[in-house]
Amino acid sequence: MESERYRRGWEKLKEVDGHAGEKVIESLKDIAPDLGRYTIEFPFGDIYSRPGLDLRSREIAVVAALTALGNAAPQLRVHIHGALNVGVTREEVVEIITMMAVYAGFPAALNGIAAAKEVFSERDRDGKS
Amino acid sequence: MESERYRRGWEKLKEVDGHAGEKVIESLKDIAPDLGRYTIEFPFGDIYSRPGLDLRSREIAVVAALTALGNAAPQLRVHIHGALNVGVTREEVVEIITMMAVYAGFPAALNGIAAAKEVFSERDRDGKS
Amino acid sequence: MESERYRRGWEKLKEVDGHAGEKVIESLKDIAPDLGRYTIEFPFGDIYSRPGLDLRSREIAVVAALTALGNAAPQLRVHIHGALNVGVTREEVVEIITMMAVYAGFPAALNGIAAAKEVFSERDRDGKS
Amino acid sequence: MESERYRRGWEKLKEVDGHAGEKVIESLKDIAPDLGRYTIEFPFGDIYSRPGLDLRSREIAVVAALTALGNAAPQLRVHIHGALNVGVTREEVVEIITMMAVYAGFPAALNGIAAAKEVFSERDRDGKS
Amino acid sequence: MESERYRRGWEKLKEVDGHAGEKVIESLKDIAPDLGRYTIEFPFGDIYSRPGLDLRSREIAVVAALTALGNAAPQLRVHIHGALNVGVTREEVVEIITMMAVYAGFPAALNGIAAAKEVFSERDRDGKS
Amino acid sequence: MESERYRRGWEKLKEVDGHAGEKVIESLKDIAPDLGRYTIEFPFGDIYSRPGLDLRSREIAVVAALTALGNAAPQLRVHIHGALNVGVTREEVVEIITMMAVYAGFPAALNGIAAAKEVFSERDRDGKS
Repeated sequence: MESERYRRGWEKLKEVDGHAGEKVIESLKDIAPDLGRYTIEFPFGDIYSRPGLDLRSREIAVVAALTALGNAAPQLRVHIHGALNVGVTREEVVEIITMMAVYAGFPAALNGIAAAKEVFSERDRDGKS
Repeated sequence: MESERYRRGWEKLKEVDGHAGEKVIESLKDIAPDLGRYTIEFPFGDIYSRPGLDLRSREIAVVAALTALGNAAPQLRVHIHGALNVGVTREEVVEIITMMAVYAGFPAALNGIAAAKEVFSERDRDGKS
Repeated sequence: MESERYRRGWEKLKEVDGHAGEKVIESLKDIAPDLGRYTIEFPFGDIYSRPGLDLRSREIAVVAALTALGNAAPQLRVHIHGALNVGVTREEVVEIITMMAVYAGFPAALNGIAAAKEVFSERDRDGKS
Repeated sequence: MESERYRRGWEKLKEVDGHAGEKVIESLKDIAPDLGRYTIEFPFGDIYSRPGLDLRSREIAVVAALTALGNAAPQLRVHIHGALNVGVTREEVVEIITMMAVYAGFPAALNGIAAAKEVFSERDRDGKS
Repeated sequence: MESERYRRGWEKLKEVDGHAGEKVIESLKDIAPDLGRYTIEFPFGDIYSRPGLDLRSREIAVVAALTALGNAAPQLRVHIHGALNVGVTREEVVEIITMMAVYAGFPAALNGIAAAKEVFSERDRDGKS
Repeated sequence: MESERYRRGWEKLKEVDGHAGEKVIESLKDIAPDLGRYTIEFPFGDIYSRPGLDLRSREIAVVAALTALGNAAPQLRVHIHGALNVGVTREEVVEIITMMAVYAGFPAALNGIAAAKEVFSERDRDGKS
């Protein structure tokens, strides 16, 4: 069962966050491998695998939340990738982040756009939408 | 033009937040009427009226962000109403808030659920979905 | 296995948070039972059950973090109970919270002390240390 | 010297926060008297007593910061009193809080105005400006 | 009218934030031009142009708030420039940031001073006060 | 007395934070020397010197709080050094930070681990535990 959560989480992580997600887990291997395992099991094996909300809506929620919190730039970039990977368009990503000016202030929105700019450039280089 | 933003914002505010939104503006009348006017003009007249993202996705983003921030309970309740008003289901609201356990911690998610519980009870009393 | 995590988590939850923890899970039953299950499985079944750090140190960490965040009063109260349940003294709880004046500001520390005051009164009524 | 900081801080606390400040210190007496002493010595004995910035500017800074943080309502109310006590007008208080809609989002500003409303009502009852 | 807000905002942006503000707007042109427009219209065209509070007090409020929030370093630097541009002295900037040790903790104040150090160096190079 | 707090604080700062702490104070000398002095006097001369909680528990509290806040990376690194200097093991540091995934979200924990990784590497180079 435990291993079923891990296997399911790993599949979901690859589906949503692709290479960026795998690199996060990789970077934890030598220092906090159990945090790596939990990151696969709980967020992806448990939460993302739930049927009650489509992946597109999940990524909209996460991009909004991380933009609003404003203290998790690496994870925001991973989830902007994630949003684009599951069908949110670049225009919609910009729209979600812009909207956070209302709820978390203009600095949060401006820093969110800076993160989006980096992700879009990286994807341009890789020929991704 | 200015008044066009206000008129458009007021329509949008009523569409999304219904009575709860109007009460917020009403409560500002005697102390900060201009903040009330800005709340109509910028968030609703400018942002919510933009074509690039559907209302359902906007409310998903706002419920997620306010749950994650964890310091805006009255506004979270208004936007849980808003989400339900524009077609997000109660199950999806619970799903979005539950998901914030991953991104902002279990306390944020638990307090978000407490807000949802209050809103759902109020809507039960009013015979709303 | 899944049920083993739940069983182990439930034992740990009772050991640390006692009645206060059970009430949190109870309150989730009708609205977000899965969040209740996750709260038992991940924080308590996975994290609190790890051997690498004693319970006393864990509760010191949590009381400090929730005082510093300043937006999770109900959870702070639960974990002040938890700290006292696993052997942290009232004087040490006050010391940890006071210390947060340095790292998160005096308002965070003052509001943390207000939470401690409520918990100590409740425990006085119940004849607990 | 130590006692000089305390004496100077106590005078400054009374000048800025009046009765509201004294009540905060009073409430700490039985649970965390040293935090009460530090609150007098460091913020008021050291910081507020510095010559480099006038009291009016100091209170503008604090009202802005506590509105933006959004998790310290009791302290925000004390410092709205403080601002009014040292010559900031009610209109200016509303202006500072409104401005935080830009930097910390509309929820922060709306909750700040709610705090101001309570303070203004209390001062109306007490016949204060 | 819309264009009047923009024109007025642009003038105010240049008055307060000078070149640093213009660069922010410039950087948004290709990715989120509407967020750039809103940044001119709402914060500067609406808020900063209000008569109820002098520019000096406004910048004191913003430097305090962004130091306290601690997650908006680029915007804090822009507004330290802004404060100096409208007549706040370097000593007063240091005083405001130092004061945030009390309200948001020493880390927030220390990181705010690091931002001020960068801005002061840049202005030294440019021969600005 | 004043100088006694300073002397006591300086000794404690060296005991806990070693060279990293001294560098922080040094960097404040030319821009905000009084903030440097307060950093020695209040956190170290007053708080860390109190008898009610051992240094190990204090550093556990601070590492937890700064990981949870997520906006004070330089100070988190200083206090990971501090924790290791006063006898917390690397495994325990990883355990405390991992635990913050529950209370402040996975991004906070992941960024905390990244800080720990830098500190551990630096100490490896210096032959420290």
